[in-house]
Amino acid sequence: MLFMKGYGMVKVGQAGWLEVERPTAGPLDALVRPTSVAPCSSDTHALHGGLGNVENLILGHEACGEVVEVGNLVKNFKPGDKVVVPCCTPDWLKLGIQGKGWDNAHDDGTPFGSFKFLKSEPGVWGEVFHVNDADANLVLLPENVKEDAALMTVDMMSTGFHGVELADIDWGDNVVVLGIGPVGLMCVAGAKLKGAARIIATGTRPICIDIAKQYGATDIVNYKNGRVPEQVQELLKGKADKVIIAGGGPETLAESLEMIKPTGTISNVNFFDPKDVFTIPAPLWDLGMGDVSIKGGFCPGGAERIRRLLNIIAAGRVDPSKMITQRFEGFDKIPEAFELMGKKGKDLIKPAVFIKW
Amino acid sequence: MLFMKGYGMVKVGQAGWLEVERPTAGPLDALVRPTSVAPCSSDTHALHGGLGNVENLILGHEACGEVVEVGNLVKNFKPGDKVVVPCCTPDWLKLGIQGKGWDNAHDDGTPFGSFKFLKSEPGVWGEVFHVNDADANLVLLPENVKEDAALMTVDMMSTGFHGVELADIDWGDNVVVLGIGPVGLMCVAGAKLKGAARIIATGTRPICIDIAKQYGATDIVNYKNGRVPEQVQELLKGKADKVIIAGGGPETLAESLEMIKPTGTISNVNFFDPKDVFTIPAPLWDLGMGDVSIKGGFCPGGAERIRRLLNIIAAGRVDPSKMITQRFEGFDKIPEAFELMGKKGKDLIKPAVFIKW
Amino acid sequence: MLFMKGYGMVKVGQAGWLEVERPTAGPLDALVRPTSVAPCSSDTHALHGGLGNVENLILGHEACGEVVEVGNLVKNFKPGDKVVVPCCTPDWLKLGIQGKGWDNAHDDGTPFGSFKFLKSEPGVWGEVFHVNDADANLVLLPENVKEDAALMTVDMMSTGFHGVELADIDWGDNVVVLGIGPVGLMCVAGAKLKGAARIIATGTRPICIDIAKQYGATDIVNYKNGRVPEQVQELLKGKADKVIIAGGGPETLAESLEMIKPTGTISNVNFFDPKDVFTIPAPLWDLGMGDVSIKGGFCPGGAERIRRLLNIIAAGRVDPSKMITQRFEGFDKIPEAFELMGKKGKDLIKPAVFIKW
Amino acid sequence: MLFMKGYGMVKVGQAGWLEVERPTAGPLDALVRPTSVAPCSSDTHALHGGLGNVENLILGHEACGEVVEVGNLVKNFKPGDKVVVPCCTPDWLKLGIQGKGWDNAHDDGTPFGSFKFLKSEPGVWGEVFHVNDADANLVLLPENVKEDAALMTVDMMSTGFHGVELADIDWGDNVVVLGIGPVGLMCVAGAKLKGAARIIATGTRPICIDIAKQYGATDIVNYKNGRVPEQVQELLKGKADKVIIAGGGPETLAESLEMIKPTGTISNVNFFDPKDVFTIPAPLWDLGMGDVSIKGGFCPGGAERIRRLLNIIAAGRVDPSKMITQRFEGFDKIPEAFELMGKKGKDLIKPAVFIKW
Repeated sequence: MLFMKGYGMVKVGQAGWLEVERPTAGPLDALVRPTSVAPCSSDTHALHGGLGNVENLILGHEACGEVVEVGNLVKNFKPGDKVVVPCCTPDWLKLGIQGKGWDNAHDDGTPFGSFKFLKSEPGVWGEVFHVNDADANLVLLPENVKEDAALMTVDMMSTGFHGVELADIDWGDNVVVLGIGPVGLMCVAGAKLKGAARIIATGTRPICIDIAKQYGATDIVNYKNGRVPEQVQELLKGKADKVIIAGGGPETLAESLEMIKPTGTISNVNFFDPKDVFTIPAPLWDLGMGDVSIKGGFCPGGAERIRRLLNIIAAGRVDPSKMITQRFEGFDKIPEAFELMGKKGKDLIKPAVFIKW
Repeated sequence: MLFMKGYGMVKVGQAGWLEVERPTAGPLDALVRPTSVAPCSSDTHALHGGLGNVENLILGHEACGEVVEVGNLVKNFKPGDKVVVPCCTPDWLKLGIQGKGWDNAHDDGTPFGSFKFLKSEPGVWGEVFHVNDADANLVLLPENVKEDAALMTVDMMSTGFHGVELADIDWGDNVVVLGIGPVGLMCVAGAKLKGAARIIATGTRPICIDIAKQYGATDIVNYKNGRVPEQVQELLKGKADKVIIAGGGPETLAESLEMIKPTGTISNVNFFDPKDVFTIPAPLWDLGMGDVSIKGGFCPGGAERIRRLLNIIAAGRVDPSKMITQRFEGFDKIPEAFELMGKKGKDLIKPAVFIKW
Repeated sequence: MLFMKGYGMVKVGQAGWLEVERPTAGPLDALVRPTSVAPCSSDTHALHGGLGNVENLILGHEACGEVVEVGNLVKNFKPGDKVVVPCCTPDWLKLGIQGKGWDNAHDDGTPFGSFKFLKSEPGVWGEVFHVNDADANLVLLPENVKEDAALMTVDMMSTGFHGVELADIDWGDNVVVLGIGPVGLMCVAGAKLKGAARIIATGTRPICIDIAKQYGATDIVNYKNGRVPEQVQELLKGKADKVIIAGGGPETLAESLEMIKPTGTISNVNFFDPKDVFTIPAPLWDLGMGDVSIKGGFCPGGAERIRRLLNIIAAGRVDPSKMITQRFEGFDKIPEAFELMGKKGKDLIKPAVFIKW
Repeated sequence: MLFMKGYGMVKVGQAGWLEVERPTAGPLDALVRPTSVAPCSSDTHALHGGLGNVENLILGHEACGEVVEVGNLVKNFKPGDKVVVPCCTPDWLKLGIQGKGWDNAHDDGTPFGSFKFLKSEPGVWGEVFHVNDADANLVLLPENVKEDAALMTVDMMSTGFHGVELADIDWGDNVVVLGIGPVGLMCVAGAKLKGAARIIATGTRPICIDIAKQYGATDIVNYKNGRVPEQVQELLKGKADKVIIAGGGPETLAESLEMIKPTGTISNVNFFDPKDVFTIPAPLWDLGMGDVSIKGGFCPGGAERIRRLLNIIAAGRVDPSKMITQRFEGFDKIPEAFELMGKKGKDLIKPAVFIKW
């Protein structure tokens, strides 16, 4: 048995370097060495018990890397290939994927089945990490996309753009985006790329507000200045066509219903806490009869999704690397980057670590 | 000023015959004399205060009739025409209708704008009633559809089929229909006509169960025998693809989430009470990330909707007149039929009154 | 090297028994022994040169069977399992499948990539046949579905229902189905299960007309009695909402345009000949501006598709086994069944051979 | 009877000033005085016989203006209001509009029913022009949109964006736009606003190429340098995801099929000539089985459409006034602007005339 080094959680609440078993690649799989990683608030969440009483787990699920080993059935990749790795790597031979293209299924109906890192296998902050169904889940880094931008596609851009696609935006819709952390910022950028007119984003941190405007926000609402639904309706002289929830607590759902037009759609890509409870007075949902839809979704994974997002970047439509506010170099800088993520300082959107081996 | 007779609410809680002002037809409108009417639980609900502290209001919103007068801009109808009257009669010159075909809009975003009877004008249990935008809201009774079946299209079938269309049924979906009152029965019939495989309906009254099976229910769940989500999962050896809520209290939403697959859709056509509060623990909605959609909608109105439903009946696909369990003849029998609706006896699905003038 | 017996084409134009190399199962694959097969006009087409100058090819692509061998990575099947085999068995690790669920892609954009039998490997009329990606492409025969009905799902029902789904049928649409061979009959049955009102089918053979009516056709048009577009418009007193092409030559496309309403959809599941040329005068397509859509598609494959169709049969919604007009027993009866298919006698819809080993 | 002056066609081939009957406003209608108009190639087409042997017809269908008179049932507009006028002004009380929102219907299925100017009534180059269903077809010019930009929404932007919406663009699609006249340019701008990655536009005139790039074209193909399908596939190293036809002859349809991926969509907003014939060899359409869709559509009309486009402009997403390359002042300059349109000089995209009364 081989061992390798990685950074993660020694136990709930305690981060640290770990020595764990080196994964091996099955016939369809690949091992990848990370060349860039970005800590995410889900990693922080896991550290603080979000996955239960876990020990000795390498964290991290956002990475680009270099293939170091492939299984004997892998056709399209070889050691040395520079790859972008979706944070969700579906089992493409499962039936839940067929027909509608949903990539997040387990045949038994368990959600998040496509999310392997942290859940069913170690994360990407190890010397190598394991990728199932490599031909279907890895993408070659294109020559015309920089690695830092590519790194932002694997979770932030895929998740944010999913919030947008769930919202079914029509030409000229007025769209509200609740939250301008990195996912919310990608919702803003995506809404612009789906034909939204006004995009009202809620947030307070100047750095996020600045990037939100660059990505297409026309208005910023600060929740400290009053209730959001009221501020939004004041700005629009009416209700919003679509609302995308990308942050906040369970009260955001009722607030969204308060500011959405009949026939509107509310889309959620926020990870609520298992202890959260949504409480919705029926009149807010037009007594169930206003043709208002509520949709909630998870980051689409797989190679084709990432290929398309990279294609958008290559065409110059959006540059998600603007969100990387803190850059580090070297595998040993992962702890520092992760700590920053946990503190969410006011000059931080997204840290990233670039690694030469 | 002309007066006419009608039946409705003298005041909250007290039904009775009324003498009210006879409506007049504006240039685009028609006056119609009812030749058949069907009391609905919404009429009962209004009587008991559902519309607030209303007095002297003629009730009823489900009718076929004969045109007695048309405005000078009406092109397609003339006195004597036998017509089917949608319970929702949109203002087709309002902007909310444009683009997506939603027929229920007020420009100011008020829901239920298309529902005029009981709200902005008297109901259909008068000697005549008023229909706005007659060319767009009336349909000639086709020769090959009986009036009793046509009468069931104007609310029950349109609403039930809306529950089905909101549920986005795919080939072979296993569908749950909560409630088998007349709207739920039409959900069952509609789900069969959208390619559902198993249709599990919940209910207890033998007459409804019998008709539900005739309309396509493959399984019946009685909530008295245990929690519905558990019974459904036992029957399906898993979760449902789609759930349609056509009855019950606010707990049905959480229960629906409990038995729906990730990527599933929950559709609601139940009228919740303004005092209802939905309480949903986040894990039931997969923490907001299971790609589960929740949609709630209102009876689509207008002539084209009804024309299509009549077309389905004429082709022999479904016979909604099976739901009429009690038949009366004569305008003076409306009180008796209405009273039956209020009591919801165990042999009742839907009463109807047929009127010769 | 092992050999096996099978029936197919010795060379173009000459059918016969063959002795060919027995396939082997790769790690993800299965070998299946056919227990029922149904010749299809595509097999006849291949025999007459439809696949080019092919020799020594086992024919057949519609089968149920028994698993005799599985690769070491196959998790859900084992020898002895009774299975239904889609005629299209996609490579689920290819990118073309991701996102929209299209199962027919090669990464290089070649169409029909999911169709392996006859194309990239021998057909199903051998002692065994090979199935790629077995976990994703095989379905256990459910206890509540008979094998003869299941056999009709693998191509006929999947293709016919695809014609229906491409046609985007709305409640109460009047639908025309051109051709009532087995695919057309399944279009009729599927259109009924998507809420069509009138279904006008074109055909002449009494046995097909009889089954078409059982499946839901309300009207039959015989092209020998006049031009189809004119007969259809006469019946409908106007144009059709949707047209599904399931047979005929290239003229059917212009004819469909002639009888479709603006905003209508024409869907094609007919296999045109490589020498066919569509010739369409611009006014028939409203000069390109009538919001008329033309869609053409290929039989969706994979296990989930078949599972859903079996679910529909199990629920009693449709019985495709009615189409089997000639039944044979024994592997040695394949030639006789195939010959019947070639002759298309007037009492034939679909022959099937049931095999005990 | 009152008369008024206007510019248009004396007879086929002869443009000139006309003295015609001044229209009157019915109860639902408005009379509008043009304050800006833009000649369109459809006007030129009409002059040369495109509408048949017409005489004494005021031309023009793109205008902003000032309301001078309203019918007694018009609620939302009054004389003096500054309005934007869709070139298509549907009859909102017709049934073809209901349900799916299609605005272009006549109940008898005649296409282009929403296009009144030039067809069923005089064009907008008169001292006043007539607008049916004013409440549903007029939009107040918003304070934050300039009249020149608004003028471009009424046909060019609405038509071009329709080409985009018909094409069902997904994140990261590579899109081809055939033709970069003003409609094609709006297709380019719209495709960018629907998430396209590469946008390859075909054209030759430098001024159009320049604006195409400003609107989002990443590549320009000149048909003089070789066959377009081959140049496109060379650029993409493969086929396109979507093709939008916005110019060219009937050969563009076959060419589009030649360069589209299986599952791709071809969308047409080009007005073909009644004498055009599409000739398509079946293999280009994958023998009818490549899941390739062909859609063709007409400029959506009505107030809500224009309101949404104005909303997009107001939010700064696109500025269609860049297409106005020649500007004139005064009603008497219409002939000069129209003549320019006919000549299609190489520095022309779109002329406009601004009128003070």
